[in-house]
Amino acid sequence: MSTETYEVGGMTCGHCVSSVTEEVSELPGVSDVQVDLATGRLTVTAAEPVGTDRVRAAVEEAGYTLLG
Amino acid sequence: MSTETYEVGGMTCGHCVSSVTEEVSELPGVSDVQVDLATGRLTVTAAEPVGTDRVRAAVEEAGYTLLG
Repeated sequence: MSTETYEVGGMTCGHCVSSVTEEVSELPGVSDVQVDLATGRLTVTAAEPVGTDRVRAAVEEAGYTLLG
Repeated sequence: MSTETYEVGGMTCGHCVSSVTEEVSELPGVSDVQVDLATGRLTVTAAEPVGTDRVRAAVEEAGYTLLG
């Protein structure tokens, strides 16, 4: 089991949180996604590490920016 | 033809604009809805005036506040 944490920029409301959660949840092997609007913290839980590149692609697909 | 303008509070992003547009568009007789995120301005075009009460109900159903 892997848990990765990232910071997402540009989210302003619950709809934004839903969009990011939905896109990241669709990545292969991901079993849980938590997004905190106030801090921008994104936590991705998966069987194996997903990796920054794929997480970034999903966040950008949702329309937001991976800050780190 | 009637055009009413209102101010909506609480919208922070394009998803919010979409939610307000969708709810207000469902009101009877409404033929066009324009929402400007930057100003909060909501413009409702309908065959007959929709009225503040029904517009407020739709805006609140979307999760936002009618300021005036």
